[in-house]
Amino acid sequence: MRNFKIVLQYEGTRYKGWQKQGKGEGDSSSSASPENTIQGKLERLLSRIAGKPVEIQGSGRTDAGVHAYGQVANFHMDTDDTPEALMEKINSYLPEDIGVISVEEVPERFHSRLNAKSKTYRYRVLNSAVPHIFERRYVYQVPEHLDMEAMRRAAILLTGSHDFKAFTSAKKGKKSTVRTVDSIQIDRVGDEIHFTFSGNGFLYHMVRILMGTLLEVGTGAKKPEDMTAILESGSRECAGPLVPACGLALMEVRYS
Amino acid sequence: MRNFKIVLQYEGTRYKGWQKQGKGEGDSSSSASPENTIQGKLERLLSRIAGKPVEIQGSGRTDAGVHAYGQVANFHMDTDDTPEALMEKINSYLPEDIGVISVEEVPERFHSRLNAKSKTYRYRVLNSAVPHIFERRYVYQVPEHLDMEAMRRAAILLTGSHDFKAFTSAKKGKKSTVRTVDSIQIDRVGDEIHFTFSGNGFLYHMVRILMGTLLEVGTGAKKPEDMTAILESGSRECAGPLVPACGLALMEVRYS
Repeated sequence: MRNFKIVLQYEGTRYKGWQKQGKGEGDSSSSASPENTIQGKLERLLSRIAGKPVEIQGSGRTDAGVHAYGQVANFHMDTDDTPEALMEKINSYLPEDIGVISVEEVPERFHSRLNAKSKTYRYRVLNSAVPHIFERRYVYQVPEHLDMEAMRRAAILLTGSHDFKAFTSAKKGKKSTVRTVDSIQIDRVGDEIHFTFSGNGFLYHMVRILMGTLLEVGTGAKKPEDMTAILESGSRECAGPLVPACGLALMEVRYS
Repeated sequence: MRNFKIVLQYEGTRYKGWQKQGKGEGDSSSSASPENTIQGKLERLLSRIAGKPVEIQGSGRTDAGVHAYGQVANFHMDTDDTPEALMEKINSYLPEDIGVISVEEVPERFHSRLNAKSKTYRYRVLNSAVPHIFERRYVYQVPEHLDMEAMRRAAILLTGSHDFKAFTSAKKGKKSTVRTVDSIQIDRVGDEIHFTFSGNGFLYHMVRILMGTLLEVGTGAKKPEDMTAILESGSRECAGPLVPACGLALMEVRYS
């Protein structure tokens, strides 16, 4: 069977996230309300095109309400279509808040999750008291003054390989919570502040809890130096709050 | 009574346009479903703040589905609030797709429609086969190749003072259909083309019919030179089609 890698954009606002509900990954036999997840929508559509069940593998989950500019997924399918024709077919069936922006045929063993080397997420903060009508679905509004310099110092302390147990909502398990954050870049763009996180992988809610913590540094509620102690604590209560999903977008997934 | 000038932004997607339904302008006694118009929403809200009926006058109507980055309106109200406090109060009551971005007190005789000197509208065309997920509510997608040079030559012929009877959906009446279009600028911005119209006033549907005609020039269905004959014909059938409202936004209203 041919293996196709696709790059996807979606506005997450009305979805329950990437991953189909119900049983775990790789089990498509029983899934509750697949229509409300991006993965469920795509599998239904691809199965209709193929005339038999097709499973799609994403590079990772995005949570309910989180957007994607460059989510990557792959699926195996028997088809005579060129990648271009397949892309057109898929887009013609997709709702207007999901779009495929590229399709390419890849070696059979390519796996969008297992082969992913690093990912980039961006969190957009609207740092203004004036609401932004047209971008409101994609930003989180924080009108308070935010100390850029303090946030940047905190970001440096959070960069690198650490146990990020304090920065996840995941239940305690046996899996490692050590991750490597390659960079956290903080840029002022007009009346917005963009926080760009790159790394080899992120735990459940990790970017949004890092964000909540950085914003506490920005307002002065926490000091940059506190980051080290929070990492060492391994305790969720020491980190900042979980910020809303709407500001977050998966920008890019890189492969070697 | 104090007179306040406000600048408004709104996403027109879910509204029946600026003007409240029912009777004509200046008559607030009976209006059907005022909730579905921007004017209706604002008047209800201002009347609630004032504790008595408040009428709001817009610089002009925007049609159903048309957006605004800088609509201007004014209203008279007895209040001890500063303009800043009033703005905060109004925004706290407004739905998230309407926002007031400035409030200032103006002389009693200021009238947002009668004193308007010129207006600028922008129409955004997504000139790509790939849909734009995040901007989809604000662009009209035209995947065909568009001849920029031909559209610019046509735009020059449409600029100036003309009888734009061929470019309006308005019923024939006694009112003059002569308008002055100061400029039509056409810019490529990434995979979009922005058409910016400035002038002293625009007839009902005029910008969107000018756009439909310019796009026909872009695809080669019409020649730039045809513009003169269409203007002279005064006949709606000679001009191009009405393009969708979603690509259009009122950008600015200027006063002397």
